[in-house]
Amino acid sequence: MKQIAFLFVAAATVAGVVTFTSRASGHADETSTQISGIGLFPGYRDWPVISVAHEAGANNDLRAVLGNDLAMKAYRKEALPFPDGTIIARLAWVYTASEANDKVFDRPQSFVAGPAINVQFMVKDSKKYAATGGWGFAQFKDGKPDPTAKLDTCFPCHEPAKAHDYVFTHYAP
Amino acid sequence: MKQIAFLFVAAATVAGVVTFTSRASGHADETSTQISGIGLFPGYRDWPVISVAHEAGANNDLRAVLGNDLAMKAYRKEALPFPDGTIIARLAWVYTASEANDKVFDRPQSFVAGPAINVQFMVKDSKKYAATGGWGFAQFKDGKPDPTAKLDTCFPCHEPAKAHDYVFTHYAP
Repeated sequence: MKQIAFLFVAAATVAGVVTFTSRASGHADETSTQISGIGLFPGYRDWPVISVAHEAGANNDLRAVLGNDLAMKAYRKEALPFPDGTIIARLAWVYTASEANDKVFDRPQSFVAGPAINVQFMVKDSKKYAATGGWGFAQFKDGKPDPTAKLDTCFPCHEPAKAHDYVFTHYAP
Repeated sequence: MKQIAFLFVAAATVAGVVTFTSRASGHADETSTQISGIGLFPGYRDWPVISVAHEAGANNDLRAVLGNDLAMKAYRKEALPFPDGTIIARLAWVYTASEANDKVFDRPQSFVAGPAINVQFMVKDSKKYAATGGWGFAQFKDGKPDPTAKLDTCFPCHEPAKAHDYVFTHYAP
């Protein structure tokens, strides 16, 4: 309980301080835009793809995991831990059957990205976020900080991936 | 039958002439590398995401659809038809259950990108590829032209998407 409370505080702190300079993030356009004290990284939508995934169950989404320059370099060198300044973005959309595509295949088999669900960021700063494995977490919805985000659950959930520096996603070749 | 034969010839021609300059493709690093006469676009792996999808059935893949600068601009302006020089890349990976992720969710629900299947390109040149809706098609496997690709089937399959300039994929917000 104590740990949960601590993580909640840490997460709240993260939410307040995700402010990066272009130097740290590796792209000129990644300077943060402060929205209610939480930084959204302009230009993230154009970052390269690390991988894609489908989460079924309650998530019911299709997702793309994107990385800034530092993230992509670390993935491609297979160099862990990720360096400070690494930013990983996870975009999720509603898993949606495509009637138009299915007509072409002549069977139900095509699932595409529907409406956007949210965007999550993992931001590496080994000192600032030392309490959560060196990672800060943030969640945005419709371009704004998501007040419903349970950021205190991010790090406990990522702990099983400690051997991969707390990051689940592996690079898709 | 005549039409099929014609398309096969057109596709074979496409395979032989997918050669683009940096001017046409919009990126300095998109000049084609000639491999067995077919151009692969260096740098495509870093292009932004148009959308993602899951094709079940015989395809059994997860896919990311990426676009060069011209593609992204056209998508974001919702301007059809796509201009000459547009290149759309479709990367597909084997749809793979993730045991590691499922352990975290405590149920089988996570599917990630496994081994790469192939990469397909649609290249817009309204004059050169006039016989196939203005689009040239190509398929690569392990970085090389895929000799098993049935390029003659590309355009007939894309014809139902004529209202969207023969492109199935819509932009994921």
